Amino acid sequence: MNTARVFDELLNALRAALGAAAVLTPDAQDPLDRYQQDWRKRYRGQALAIVRPANTDEVAQVVRLCAQHGVSIVPQGGNTSLVGGSVPDASGHQIVLSMSRLNRVLSVDAANLSMTVQAGCLLADVQAAADQAGLLFPLSLASEGSCTIGGNLATNAGGTQVLRYGTARELCLGLEAVTAQGDIWQGLQSLRKDNTGYDLRDLLIGSEGTLGIITAASLRLYPRPASQMSALVACNSLDACLRLLALARQTLDASLTGFEVMHRAPVALALQHLPAQAHAATALLPTSGDVSALPEWTVLLDTASTRVPHELSAQLEPLLDTALVAGLIDNAVIAQTETQYRAMWTLRETIPLAEKMEGLMVKHDIAVPTSCVPDFVRQAQAALDMAFPGCRVVCFGHLGDGNLHYNVQGPAHQSDQAFLSQHEHTVNDIVYDIVQRLNGTISAEHGIGQLKRDELGARQCAVSTQWMRAIKLALDPANTLNPGRLVP
Amino acid sequence: MNTARVFDELLNALRAALGAAAVLTPDAQDPLDRYQQDWRKRYRGQALAIVRPANTDEVAQVVRLCAQHGVSIVPQGGNTSLVGGSVPDASGHQIVLSMSRLNRVLSVDAANLSMTVQAGCLLADVQAAADQAGLLFPLSLASEGSCTIGGNLATNAGGTQVLRYGTARELCLGLEAVTAQGDIWQGLQSLRKDNTGYDLRDLLIGSEGTLGIITAASLRLYPRPASQMSALVACNSLDACLRLLALARQTLDASLTGFEVMHRAPVALALQHLPAQAHAATALLPTSGDVSALPEWTVLLDTASTRVPHELSAQLEPLLDTALVAGLIDNAVIAQTETQYRAMWTLRETIPLAEKMEGLMVKHDIAVPTSCVPDFVRQAQAALDMAFPGCRVVCFGHLGDGNLHYNVQGPAHQSDQAFLSQHEHTVNDIVYDIVQRLNGTISAEHGIGQLKRDELGARQCAVSTQWMRAIKLALDPANTLNPGRLVP
Repeated sequence: MNTARVFDELLNALRAALGAAAVLTPDAQDPLDRYQQDWRKRYRGQALAIVRPANTDEVAQVVRLCAQHGVSIVPQGGNTSLVGGSVPDASGHQIVLSMSRLNRVLSVDAANLSMTVQAGCLLADVQAAADQAGLLFPLSLASEGSCTIGGNLATNAGGTQVLRYGTARELCLGLEAVTAQGDIWQGLQSLRKDNTGYDLRDLLIGSEGTLGIITAASLRLYPRPASQMSALVACNSLDACLRLLALARQTLDASLTGFEVMHRAPVALALQHLPAQAHAATALLPTSGDVSALPEWTVLLDTASTRVPHELSAQLEPLLDTALVAGLIDNAVIAQTETQYRAMWTLRETIPLAEKMEGLMVKHDIAVPTSCVPDFVRQAQAALDMAFPGCRVVCFGHLGDGNLHYNVQGPAHQSDQAFLSQHEHTVNDIVYDIVQRLNGTISAEHGIGQLKRDELGARQCAVSTQWMRAIKLALDPANTLNPGRLVP
Repeated sequence: MNTARVFDELLNALRAALGAAAVLTPDAQDPLDRYQQDWRKRYRGQALAIVRPANTDEVAQVVRLCAQHGVSIVPQGGNTSLVGGSVPDASGHQIVLSMSRLNRVLSVDAANLSMTVQAGCLLADVQAAADQAGLLFPLSLASEGSCTIGGNLATNAGGTQVLRYGTARELCLGLEAVTAQGDIWQGLQSLRKDNTGYDLRDLLIGSEGTLGIITAASLRLYPRPASQMSALVACNSLDACLRLLALARQTLDASLTGFEVMHRAPVALALQHLPAQAHAATALLPTSGDVSALPEWTVLLDTASTRVPHELSAQLEPLLDTALVAGLIDNAVIAQTETQYRAMWTLRETIPLAEKMEGLMVKHDIAVPTSCVPDFVRQAQAALDMAFPGCRVVCFGHLGDGNLHYNVQGPAHQSDQAFLSQHEHTVNDIVYDIVQRLNGTISAEHGIGQLKRDELGARQCAVSTQWMRAIKLALDPANTLNPGRLVP
């Protein structure tokens, strides 16, 4: 039977199973770009069809039919992958399985501090449902209005609350998933403790749709904080930032929810390209309304508590006083109003946009042990200066997690495009070699997808690659699920 | 080649590789009982030899030699398994691989809040090393003086601090392990975020030595609390206990470190068999110095903070006042001295010993969603009363985790031994059927081992069993590592 006939048969079978409206083909009026084009516009694919099942049974049917016809599947949530994990390849032979119709919050169990949701729920809707029950689902990301919880779990998303609450992995109690054979795995538990066998839940989390399709999840909730407070702090070195972090952890304990750092360069970019958004925060620090007087490092320290605000300030103020007296910090300001609180976070969140306005950069999402962050930054800067005199580094990120966004722009005299096309590979080698020497990771929170698969294969322990391949082959021998992604 | 000759060859090869002193055979003077007999004395095995490698390379050599000779391996830490997971079978054909010589703390990284240890370190030594660095390793168990961190991780141990800090899984950042082929997997990272592929670390954690032998671990540390405080609280129903738990979580947030419940029966047993230990605590509650006036349920609420003690009491006292006014609790007492604090925990820790003195029981280590605990207790009591009129239930555990130790003794007129031998299976069926209906687990923290393997196979989702078998076969096709355990 020829390929075209197989495809026709499959499409007919999918229409019969799900209804014609659930099977979109690229020859329809809608060009279906939002399913086939990735968010960063680095990968444009061509699908045989986009299939939109309505429930778990239909997901299982789709997988069974595709497996029977030897057609592979790219599962897709909000399609916000930064590494090309959720768009089809260019062959026109893959099915995109969109989870967008499985978008219901199934239940909230306040006494168990848990909720059960379908995988296609938007992260923002999950947060809202928890909030409505007077509780907190802490996962928080820039893309929360369009990414889905299933995608967050398939990629083990991180975000701004990891220091206190962990990544998506730590926030998941159970999963339901469809296997590569179209069976339904019932692991949708809401237990805090369960020691009955291999940890299949955590195997699926972070597997980027290559082992099973997550269809529902049971999530861990927390009491909702009654008060939040942040401070903007000027430090003259990363070592000083680290000492402040240690002091903050000791003093604030679990009330410390975020510890972000911004080097002078990204703050300057924010002031340059988006002054209205950035200035409200930088003006709060006495010396840094002026770009030339920006501190070497700016820390955004975030706290939250289920208790009244004055208890938080009673902890935060003496902490900052102690740090000032000890010479760890140059100055600090605590947000006195909700407006100031928002301004501080806006400065932090403005940086990626300001970067984009500045031009193209070679981007990295790395982590090293927190204690090694100053070494990483020193070594990387020295090596890049040597290789590319005049290159510009934009460095900021989640110091509390050892996770930096470390982005490199060419020298001012060279066009960004030229620098990227000539030197991206060398820049990556320089940065990743240092990361590897410091026992770090080339992907802290964005995952591997298509973008970093070869880099991962080249750099990780041979046993890791063997095990990943063996597990993939054991659970998906026909390579039906998201082939060519993640597994080197 | 006959079996005896293969065994001789293997023993000679092991002696050549590790030195004769590292290979103990049961025909030596030492009967080697502590390696071959389990802690509960339910399983007595017979090993071909006990092998004691000195480092990771030697562990890898042992595995390679055993694999070459077709001899299987039982990895052993402190041999404190409660489910027969760490002793050899009776064949005399297995090697016990003792990790006791890999017992060094390798490093503590205070700025990264992490430490790296060899797998054979006693849990108590790990705790002590963290403490010496001014930090906390929170995993805490009754057997901490003899169990090893490698065993804790291989079984995902729980204990008394799970509510705040999670199980062993949540406390591990990275692992080094030896595969079934004798290769060394280098996953000994200390990162808070790493999204590079399948979660092999969590696959090994809880795999009970069936997929790899953990040789070293990187562990998550916490700031050391400066103050601890506990309260003993009398409640007249489990529903009231749950409402107190919700209030405590909201009020104390992350300062709430433990929430243990004890039904009247185990407290009465403690007073009866170990009055000196138990009375110091029960006498603190106004009405319950006398057994007849014991509350239906006693809660032990534990708190800790990195801040000064008066801040904890400023939270705990109004919490208990509110609960009293709202009618959730009958009365409560906060430990005013270290002696009272210890007395409260001694009461809780005395229960298993008092149970043992009382007689034999059918024991269960179950968990259900916290919200379902009252239903579980009501339904189980009713079903057991119906099946075995006059049977006695001893129920206590970690309510904050939904984890109960639910132990059943026959009616007073029947010998414990007779009840056990006639009815253990039926009691298990009654209890586990209810657990299953409430989406709970038959093993919350003790694992599966030999004891619960068939029960797991009978009760878990067929896909779970398929996946477990497929993964085991993919990573250990010759079934070299701990065969017959865990995987149904």
